[in-house]
Amino acid sequence: MKISLGTDIGGTNTCVGSVSPDGKVLHKETFATSDYSDGTAYANHLAEVVRTVISQTESQQPEIQFEWLGLGIGAPNGNHRSGCIEHPPNLNFKGITPLVELMQARLKLPTVDLTNDANAAAIGEKKFGAAKDYSDFIMITLGTGLGSGVFVNNQLVYGHDGFAGEVGHISVIPDGRYCGFGRRGSLENYCSATGIRRTFFEMLAQLGSPTALDHLNIGELNSKDVADAAEKGDLVAIATMEFTGRLLGEALASTALVTSPAAFFLFGGPVKAGPILLDPVRKSFEQHLIPTYKNKIKIIESTLPMGNAAILGAAALIAQ
Amino acid sequence: MKISLGTDIGGTNTCVGSVSPDGKVLHKETFATSDYSDGTAYANHLAEVVRTVISQTESQQPEIQFEWLGLGIGAPNGNHRSGCIEHPPNLNFKGITPLVELMQARLKLPTVDLTNDANAAAIGEKKFGAAKDYSDFIMITLGTGLGSGVFVNNQLVYGHDGFAGEVGHISVIPDGRYCGFGRRGSLENYCSATGIRRTFFEMLAQLGSPTALDHLNIGELNSKDVADAAEKGDLVAIATMEFTGRLLGEALASTALVTSPAAFFLFGGPVKAGPILLDPVRKSFEQHLIPTYKNKIKIIESTLPMGNAAILGAAALIAQ
Repeated sequence: MKISLGTDIGGTNTCVGSVSPDGKVLHKETFATSDYSDGTAYANHLAEVVRTVISQTESQQPEIQFEWLGLGIGAPNGNHRSGCIEHPPNLNFKGITPLVELMQARLKLPTVDLTNDANAAAIGEKKFGAAKDYSDFIMITLGTGLGSGVFVNNQLVYGHDGFAGEVGHISVIPDGRYCGFGRRGSLENYCSATGIRRTFFEMLAQLGSPTALDHLNIGELNSKDVADAAEKGDLVAIATMEFTGRLLGEALASTALVTSPAAFFLFGGPVKAGPILLDPVRKSFEQHLIPTYKNKIKIIESTLPMGNAAILGAAALIAQ
Repeated sequence: MKISLGTDIGGTNTCVGSVSPDGKVLHKETFATSDYSDGTAYANHLAEVVRTVISQTESQQPEIQFEWLGLGIGAPNGNHRSGCIEHPPNLNFKGITPLVELMQARLKLPTVDLTNDANAAAIGEKKFGAAKDYSDFIMITLGTGLGSGVFVNNQLVYGHDGFAGEVGHISVIPDGRYCGFGRRGSLENYCSATGIRRTFFEMLAQLGSPTALDHLNIGELNSKDVADAAEKGDLVAIATMEFTGRLLGEALASTALVTSPAAFFLFGGPVKAGPILLDPVRKSFEQHLIPTYKNKIKIIESTLPMGNAAILGAAALIAQ
């Protein structure tokens, strides 16, 4: 059986999994990314965990002959072109870590490949998810941030320097919310899970009414609380989801104009809110499209499983 | 000599030219597009003019053997995939005109190809202009509207339905200026030649001061008047060019995030204003980029000659 390995590097945890040709995770290991403040020490441990995943996968099905195709890595600020993680804001090892080179030196695998997490998700959706039949599409991942991966002509777009697909940073409200980097008003500060939380506070300010979430600590409130409250009819939460959907729909309508995708695939916690978010997204999207684009472009929920999506995406980098 | 033919279809005039392999227009004919309210009658006349251009080109240099490669057509709402002009807002023949098919039936040329005018300009810049060495770039044309053509991996992006590269319609000011189509706040209503005219009136409203252009009829004022007045130190005109540059820079910074181009090439009348527009564009562009993008992406003036750019672009569709 031809097996790919996928590694998802998150700010908190790193997951490594072995993935079958039909997109099943056979064995998975997790360790704390945040324990490592040095890229080389991290690479040493990652190589060890990869070897554990290989041996565990093989020992679980000793009757099968495994062919290990390679290791795909999805990481924040992962640059496919250079094979390096470059100045990741959310990892403890800063600067430039040549992770592909470090892993090639430590593992006997035919291929090691790296890209950023949202690009990996896009490749995963194409290989194992709902985007199989799409040659031109854009993947949008909603989490702490808002990531994206752009497919044109069946190929992921890397751009001139490997960093294409950063739709989360497009400007949606001039002089809007503070974003870090000294920038303001970018999409991810409104429409990521974190953005939804911020919008809830804005709606509390605007509407001034009591809500079903008044018993929660301010620091604890998250986008799922807001989605659940909206589902149960809380007006402030509903206003939050509608505002989020309206703005995301408008931003996707702008983004569509660059590469004219046949679909957007949406992935992540907030997408699980379902119609209470997606109905306003679709309505606003159509409203903001120019006539030649109307009623042509789908907005589709990702079918990648939440827990293993990033591993599948990273593995798809090898399996594609 | 291998010769391509280029046709530029504008709302007012149609130009047809023969183009040498090194990008020289050898012979050119012009006729009024607006005389034709029917696609077939238009195609009949266009075929006649193409035949004139061929015979005139050949008779001017009887010692040369010409090989006619084909006819490239740049037209508003020209769809490369379908070969049709689809619902052009500025032409008298409405609906869908299958111009490639109509021309193939009327001319004995190996190839007839069609795309929209801004895509043709991008191909022209790549083949005959300053984008020769760029595999990932975006062409921006500033005129009555704001058009664009997107190159990824040395290929023009057409998207799933042939209409990619409509950056002029991205939303820059939510609920901003009225755009037509019931949409509001899109880029071309601020940063095209027409948009600059509108901004001058906004600045007149905001600043309330007399200007060097007070002697002009309101209906006559155009973006060149504003650029010239700005050059001579008129404060309202300077404020107009700075506002335009700031907004265009911010919009290009958002656009860059999708495909990560190595450069934007700017073409059109307003670009001739030079530093008084381009300095604020570049400054705002860098300001609005995320750190991984800063100081990497150039903003370059097109080197296509103003008068023949659209013909060269259309011909490049064949010559590429």
